[in-house]
Amino acid sequence: MRILLVGAGGVGDAIAKIAARRDFYELLVVSDYDESRAERTVDWIRARHGDEVAARFATAQIDASDPEVVASVAREHQATHVMNAVEPKFVPAIFAGALAAGADYLDMAMSLSEPHPTDPYEKTGVKLGDDQFAQTTDWDVAGRLALVGMGVEPGLSDVFARFAADHLFSDIDELGVRDGANLVVTDDDGNEIFAPSFSIWTTIEECLNPPVIWEEDAGWYTTAPFSEPEVFEFPEGIGPVECVNVEHEEVLLMPRWVDAKRVTFKYGLGAEFINVLQVLHLLGLDSTSPVRVRSDDGPAHVAPRDVVAAALPDPATIGPRMTGKTCAGLWVTGTGTDGGPRSTYLYHVTDNEYTMREYESQCVVWQTALNPVIALELLATGVWAGRGVLGPEAFDAAPFLELMARPVTDGGYGQAWRIEDRAA
Amino acid sequence: MRILLVGAGGVGDAIAKIAARRDFYELLVVSDYDESRAERTVDWIRARHGDEVAARFATAQIDASDPEVVASVAREHQATHVMNAVEPKFVPAIFAGALAAGADYLDMAMSLSEPHPTDPYEKTGVKLGDDQFAQTTDWDVAGRLALVGMGVEPGLSDVFARFAADHLFSDIDELGVRDGANLVVTDDDGNEIFAPSFSIWTTIEECLNPPVIWEEDAGWYTTAPFSEPEVFEFPEGIGPVECVNVEHEEVLLMPRWVDAKRVTFKYGLGAEFINVLQVLHLLGLDSTSPVRVRSDDGPAHVAPRDVVAAALPDPATIGPRMTGKTCAGLWVTGTGTDGGPRSTYLYHVTDNEYTMREYESQCVVWQTALNPVIALELLATGVWAGRGVLGPEAFDAAPFLELMARPVTDGGYGQAWRIEDRAA
Repeated sequence: MRILLVGAGGVGDAIAKIAARRDFYELLVVSDYDESRAERTVDWIRARHGDEVAARFATAQIDASDPEVVASVAREHQATHVMNAVEPKFVPAIFAGALAAGADYLDMAMSLSEPHPTDPYEKTGVKLGDDQFAQTTDWDVAGRLALVGMGVEPGLSDVFARFAADHLFSDIDELGVRDGANLVVTDDDGNEIFAPSFSIWTTIEECLNPPVIWEEDAGWYTTAPFSEPEVFEFPEGIGPVECVNVEHEEVLLMPRWVDAKRVTFKYGLGAEFINVLQVLHLLGLDSTSPVRVRSDDGPAHVAPRDVVAAALPDPATIGPRMTGKTCAGLWVTGTGTDGGPRSTYLYHVTDNEYTMREYESQCVVWQTALNPVIALELLATGVWAGRGVLGPEAFDAAPFLELMARPVTDGGYGQAWRIEDRAA
Repeated sequence: MRILLVGAGGVGDAIAKIAARRDFYELLVVSDYDESRAERTVDWIRARHGDEVAARFATAQIDASDPEVVASVAREHQATHVMNAVEPKFVPAIFAGALAAGADYLDMAMSLSEPHPTDPYEKTGVKLGDDQFAQTTDWDVAGRLALVGMGVEPGLSDVFARFAADHLFSDIDELGVRDGANLVVTDDDGNEIFAPSFSIWTTIEECLNPPVIWEEDAGWYTTAPFSEPEVFEFPEGIGPVECVNVEHEEVLLMPRWVDAKRVTFKYGLGAEFINVLQVLHLLGLDSTSPVRVRSDDGPAHVAPRDVVAAALPDPATIGPRMTGKTCAGLWVTGTGTDGGPRSTYLYHVTDNEYTMREYESQCVVWQTALNPVIALELLATGVWAGRGVLGPEAFDAAPFLELMARPVTDGGYGQAWRIEDRAA
């Protein structure tokens, strides 16, 4: 396997660092629009793991918005797999570039949605991933695989869905992704500050888009932002967090391969963060349309959302000042294999203290990066195989979860995941 | 009386329009840094009231930040009174310019405060008006009057305090200014929008400064922003509004001339507006320090607070889309003149429908402008007289309130104010 990794931002950097401890591939090319970022990642790997490991890495400059450039860089390095680790707006270009180069493709977020033009809070418009699934025949005919939504959420959550259907439930009422954390960021004086662990720009985008829900009878439909608030009890000391519906890939992926009456995604934003997003929207500060404002150099035209992002700490820099855990999981309800009612939360928790110490990577970013590396290893070893455009739930979940949990000393990733049964 | 009005913004414009219906002065010079704004005001007066009225008006260009320019314009027009109607940051320059020109002076907001350097939420630093009161001897020696804080709040509220002490109470426990409104702004489709009726920039400044409180034993002290929330029931259909402590001039003025055990100012911001201000502060969007942000013309440095103001509708433009009433008043508790416990709210309500129809002026702005015109008339007719730096409560309140309420047909302003007794 020869991997072209597109993007050396937070998640791309962590993918390379996690892969550096594995040997299932022959070459991993770290590419970025700014090649110095890719070099920084490989330099870290060399310093941490030595020249022999670093010799399996290369760097490249790439323009992820141009399919021909992506194909050209992939061909140059004889890439067998293109791993997309940049913002979802680049999905179409990298997706096309990989196919043109005859490589398989993986991503962690799917092609973007567009709201219904007249009825955005009831009907879907262009859905997440629609542009990719529309091309499934091209991939199938070419004999190539596009494994889409293979991060943590979507990704690990979808693997959990397949596992629950195959091994825990005879009949599923709801597949409900539930994501929550108890992360705290402090300033130099130790006072807690408001500092989201992921891009506020992207968070505004996904939280203010109409959330999508799937039901067996109704199919896909949308609601107003922040709908159906619910307090979910997260494990391992995280505790209760207010969760609301958010537009997310799992709702588009799971119903294609797993039988369930209903599929939802709720994000544990917490009441404070939801309030912040609502106020930003109320004041028009979520807008990407420039407003005219005085500046040091005369009138400037800036997008309010860019100013909000600029006023907050850069999420990539807050890892050292952050404490706490993040939890990704899937809450499944229905009928268990024993015929009785069952309510089960399958989850994986990551502690920022661990990811900073071992990888100098913030936990939310690192948890996202872990899963595509495991998937690549399963593809490299032939445990997973497929063609066309497929989600994670199209593959057998058991070997994924086994390799993930197996101790490092036995050749696994040493990342425990849990099955927690609740009152049904 | 020859008046130099400094500033033809919302309040200055309304002062000129209200004065146009009175004849107590010989000349009113409307001045502004942008003289075309002053001309627009006088053009409106000419169109509404004819050439004869407009002949008592003139316009001038002025730089309110330069005391020598203010003095020079005042001398040129032989001004006997300088009426300050610009932002409080210009108070020191206009205050000095008026004295240098040998004119009396009025304003509606006092010189700015500076928080205590180490203990801002308990102790006062430089207080509102401190810079002006420090110069009282200069004004006294010159035989000139500076009547400070003579808008609606401060202004009318201080007149109410003096009236309550002279006519309604034998002993006052608390003088509590309470300001609230039920104003609603709608967009072109009739949907309610978030559009403050006053500058968000200034509101952030006054609401995030430490509120000041006065007590007989403790003197002046400060608290944290938004302290002591209380739901106050406003009259004439406005109803209950959540009020919180805010830094305001009345607390600095009233104790100098009126005996009371405690003086407070609470602003009926309402829970939604308080939440908005808290979120802006949490995210650093109240900051006036520039942040670097991308713009259409490359990186720009802009102050987040300026961007918040730019993203909201201009308060000067929302009058036609606004409905509702604003209430300014003083809640007095203590012992009535009959020796029994008394709780009384003295207030004045302004309806936006009336001020837009009669003055094309938004009600909050118009209510502020009304009171200095009445005060100027009392000074012109010799009913009020004084020297030094004085607040409104240094003068007899009865003739002010009589002239304010007397019907227009009898030579008054026709603006009813009310005394509402409550359960004590």
